[in-house]
Amino acid sequence: MAYTYEYPRPSVTVDLAIFTIREGKLHVLLIRRGGQPFKGKWALPGGFVLEGEDLETAALRELQEETGVRDLYLEQLYTFGEPQRDPRGRVITVAYFALISSDRQELSAQTDAAGVEWHAMDALPPLAFDHEKILEYALDRLRNKLEYTTVGFQLLPKKFTLSELQGIYEAILGRGLDKRNFRRKIALLDILEETDEKKMEGVHRPARLYRFKARKFEKLKDKGILFPF
Amino acid sequence: MAYTYEYPRPSVTVDLAIFTIREGKLHVLLIRRGGQPFKGKWALPGGFVLEGEDLETAALRELQEETGVRDLYLEQLYTFGEPQRDPRGRVITVAYFALISSDRQELSAQTDAAGVEWHAMDALPPLAFDHEKILEYALDRLRNKLEYTTVGFQLLPKKFTLSELQGIYEAILGRGLDKRNFRRKIALLDILEETDEKKMEGVHRPARLYRFKARKFEKLKDKGILFPF
Repeated sequence: MAYTYEYPRPSVTVDLAIFTIREGKLHVLLIRRGGQPFKGKWALPGGFVLEGEDLETAALRELQEETGVRDLYLEQLYTFGEPQRDPRGRVITVAYFALISSDRQELSAQTDAAGVEWHAMDALPPLAFDHEKILEYALDRLRNKLEYTTVGFQLLPKKFTLSELQGIYEAILGRGLDKRNFRRKIALLDILEETDEKKMEGVHRPARLYRFKARKFEKLKDKGILFPF
Repeated sequence: MAYTYEYPRPSVTVDLAIFTIREGKLHVLLIRRGGQPFKGKWALPGGFVLEGEDLETAALRELQEETGVRDLYLEQLYTFGEPQRDPRGRVITVAYFALISSDRQELSAQTDAAGVEWHAMDALPPLAFDHEKILEYALDRLRNKLEYTTVGFQLLPKKFTLSELQGIYEAILGRGLDKRNFRRKIALLDILEETDEKKMEGVHRPARLYRFKARKFEKLKDKGILFPF
């Protein structure tokens, strides 16, 4: 079957930058391309938007088909439309991004398979298309969001130590933070409460576990709170 | 001439939400549609992306063709791709937004012509397509940006009174702000310096004119500063 139009039309794709933190470092989920162009190169998961399919639906479908991940909260990042960005012709891509815990079941299953892997952001392989540029943009957005939203908290378990919280910030920002200064700023936000539990962390004495003050956190989340680190 | 493809392809358009403040109220620039669909209805300026044309280039071209405005700093807002959003078939639109001074020459010329007008955001006519939804999204973004960037300052002359500054915030937020509280927060930011000049404001005694501390302002602008009003 063929489709004929009076004016030339672009193809439209979606691409996904899915981040997690593993071993204290920010990682991104990449797939190895099985077909041309850029066969064998690493790329962001993604693909063509189908007729009658919403953009976000297309993004979730491609993510599931290529990596096994379902039910992720995606945020639209940016639409990239440079005329020469794809050797196959004009392809405009709507990029999405998300942060997830690296312990998700479906991911550990899939990442055992060939072709889907977490890659540390500070040691990326060469990528297909303009995916390096898309990732650069996604990382900027992520670091920005860290400053005025609760985005970093999506990566934590229900109860966590202050070192774990600081580790998330350090991994995303790609630099160390002063412990005393970090704890002072977190205290100012007044969104954490102590639990009765402690947790062993390395060779130090057990560290206090914290959780969010639920109502206060929800309120701040809606407003977009500031983390000026 | 006809263009034939193996799979169906969407059309891609750009739409622009251009805001200004007039008489203390937030306004948006609308055009009256000359053709079908929605002939005679008000709509955001915009149109089809041409082959070989960058998305932002297309947005600037459409803006100039339809409203006469040139050289505007546009920010990409969001891409809207619901399959049924355009009665002509699948049309995905990349929306942009910008804030400009209402005293721009080309605008005052154009807005005398039929078909291009500023409309107050609190008294919009019914709009074509999903442009009400796009505007709602743009207004949300604008209000959000007011909280953590210097976006509101783009609308001010080089020297301005504190009342003028507060007026910008009130117009965008659509509500009054407490004067003392506003001035305290602005003072905390420490980005303004007094000039030697004053300006008459209504029947009150002359009001002090302020300007930005240039270096401090640039630094804050790069970081994205917070206006927690």
